[in-house]
Amino acid sequence: MTSRLESFVSSANAEDTDFPLNNLPYGVFSTGGARRCGVAIGDSILDVAQLENSGVISLGDQVLQNAAWNELMAAGRPVWDKLREQLTSLLSTDGEHRDAVGNALVPMAGAKLHLPFEVSEFTDFYSSRHHAFNVGSMFRGPENALPPNWLHMPIGYNGRASSVVVSGTEIIRPQGQLKDPESEVPHFGPCERFDIELEMGAIVGTPSDKPVSVQQAYDNLFGYVLLNDWSARDIQTWEYQPLGPFQAKATATTISPWIVTKAALEPFRVSTPEREKPLLEYLHEPGPMLYDIDLHVTYMPCGSSTISVISQTNYRELYYSSAQQLAHHTSSGCPMRTGDLLGSGTISGPARNSSGSLLELCLGGKEPFTLDSGETRCFIEDGDTVGLHGAAKASNYRIGFGPCAGRVVGSAK
Amino acid sequence: MTSRLESFVSSANAEDTDFPLNNLPYGVFSTGGARRCGVAIGDSILDVAQLENSGVISLGDQVLQNAAWNELMAAGRPVWDKLREQLTSLLSTDGEHRDAVGNALVPMAGAKLHLPFEVSEFTDFYSSRHHAFNVGSMFRGPENALPPNWLHMPIGYNGRASSVVVSGTEIIRPQGQLKDPESEVPHFGPCERFDIELEMGAIVGTPSDKPVSVQQAYDNLFGYVLLNDWSARDIQTWEYQPLGPFQAKATATTISPWIVTKAALEPFRVSTPEREKPLLEYLHEPGPMLYDIDLHVTYMPCGSSTISVISQTNYRELYYSSAQQLAHHTSSGCPMRTGDLLGSGTISGPARNSSGSLLELCLGGKEPFTLDSGETRCFIEDGDTVGLHGAAKASNYRIGFGPCAGRVVGSAK
Repeated sequence: MTSRLESFVSSANAEDTDFPLNNLPYGVFSTGGARRCGVAIGDSILDVAQLENSGVISLGDQVLQNAAWNELMAAGRPVWDKLREQLTSLLSTDGEHRDAVGNALVPMAGAKLHLPFEVSEFTDFYSSRHHAFNVGSMFRGPENALPPNWLHMPIGYNGRASSVVVSGTEIIRPQGQLKDPESEVPHFGPCERFDIELEMGAIVGTPSDKPVSVQQAYDNLFGYVLLNDWSARDIQTWEYQPLGPFQAKATATTISPWIVTKAALEPFRVSTPEREKPLLEYLHEPGPMLYDIDLHVTYMPCGSSTISVISQTNYRELYYSSAQQLAHHTSSGCPMRTGDLLGSGTISGPARNSSGSLLELCLGGKEPFTLDSGETRCFIEDGDTVGLHGAAKASNYRIGFGPCAGRVVGSAK
Repeated sequence: MTSRLESFVSSANAEDTDFPLNNLPYGVFSTGGARRCGVAIGDSILDVAQLENSGVISLGDQVLQNAAWNELMAAGRPVWDKLREQLTSLLSTDGEHRDAVGNALVPMAGAKLHLPFEVSEFTDFYSSRHHAFNVGSMFRGPENALPPNWLHMPIGYNGRASSVVVSGTEIIRPQGQLKDPESEVPHFGPCERFDIELEMGAIVGTPSDKPVSVQQAYDNLFGYVLLNDWSARDIQTWEYQPLGPFQAKATATTISPWIVTKAALEPFRVSTPEREKPLLEYLHEPGPMLYDIDLHVTYMPCGSSTISVISQTNYRELYYSSAQQLAHHTSSGCPMRTGDLLGSGTISGPARNSSGSLLELCLGGKEPFTLDSGETRCFIEDGDTVGLHGAAKASNYRIGFGPCAGRVVGSAK
């Protein structure tokens, strides 16, 4: 399926919409009242909770009545497929129940979007070859940039699910322990090197309680979001040895509001790059499990309305797929649950303007980058807004994610 | 309050019981049917779900009807105090509702114990001076044993809540990537250096969504359990740089079945040791927030019934209290939730036989330790059972935790 499916919702047939009938991503919205499950279609949201309630959508058990998609995710692949089939039919040009479906359409512009699922636990990986090389070079020189284990396993660490927020949430600049290189002792104060990390987030649908293969891991994944793992580089530098990042990554992680399903991304599957060293068998990919998704980062400095594109890259730059990451995650017996969120790691391409972090864009603080407004930046200043954007692109349609944006405000006194 | 309170439940008046009227720890049990909330008293469990249901216990809203204590924990300190007051009165020698209370007593020997609360997220700290020194010496020599940040902040990292299990759960030896020092590449196989970590777990009762002071952190804590963070040392060695422990700590973390409340531990408060370097103000302790709790580790090798005590130490050996850990945890704005579990870090004393890990007991694998059965061990073999035990001791009573034990079985093929 590589051409656009036509919908009776005309805005879904525009070539530049993020949400054609081929997409059907899952979100949670409100319009003054309670939060409920909805599906993006063109410039509207389909209130699927209402349609399930009235019997137009029928999945066996009712699984769309909470303010989160976890229940559908836990119901398993046959129910995922059933819902997608019914939605595709109901929203097509010759769909049934036209009145009921039409009445369940809500203008997206008037709706507030919330976290689309309850995040059980959040894991962050480090799977971009270019990012690992760039950051490693800054700290250890290009010869020792990659840690010895990097080409053998998807390195990862556990983050904080409680700090995951939806796009649009204001981000309060963190405070923490900072140590100037010339000082003997640390001080406590606001982060001065506040950064982004451009990532994709993969969401576990089907739980597992023992090690799974890469194929099983792929099957257990439900969908994807854009993910910005806000990072306090100066807090990180002082705290992260020997046990890894902690408070530097605990302020907030922003995700885009729509879960784009694996089904929608199916036509865009690509293989991971050629292996530089052979992988152990438990990490072998039986087929292409990465995706061709164009990504870019926008920056709007405080007090300006000029939005600059500061970086452009692609999800296929990753060395490990989320299926490989998930298989590795379970290798020691770690139980995975519905709603677990796996960050891909910062996605950087080979060029400076394909960096997934400001740290790389400004060469570790040595060379500020210039915005279209003429201003320069190394790290984020109070009042600046940063957005991530992504879309998989076919000839006459795109599978968009909606923005993943946040404005940074000063620390409370 | 430093003497024993007398109960009409006579087994609660024995000097060696873990569960006198002064304790009243909270667990979840079943006797064939559904899991429900219970309180340990002597050799019995008081079915508090039943007593709340019949109105003998009355807390305003019903908060004891789930198979977890999270609802009570979320209800806040006034409700915590109210329940403890009612339980202390009902179980005393002249308590009212004697028939109803007597009928709600279940013999502990016939009950199955479950996880006492839903673990929201799990964080593990590294706050024992001796443990950090011992382990650091093995890797970097005694001069560089302590990382530069260690005396300035409670170092911690995020673990996996999904892998937390209750005492008695069988532990499957993990598999993972291992790399022999003499080999160029890693292989995949069963962990050969499987270890324990003797810790206390602190449980967050009252949530917070911004930085809190040490006093507020203390107030937000609900209670404590014993905690064994099973650790695959060989997996850890190969994976942990640069982002910290991941799969080495994801197999299982065992906790004891009873939440011992802060109220029960109140008479045993002690101060953290004298600071070697002054702490930043946000980590200042306004009063004693550590506890005098004797701890020991038992070991029963496969095929033997001889149980050896292999280590004895005390919770007061820690350099940072759980209140300091929690305050630091929130410093960057990290939201904390009811049910968050904070591991203290491995608790080691100054002597070899006060080690909180086998890694320290066997000097990194160089000197096996000898069990009472005559067998020797460096790390855990299949079929071995390890138990943690703890009690705060007053003149004529003790506040016990119940055992925190697990038997290790071989990896599935």
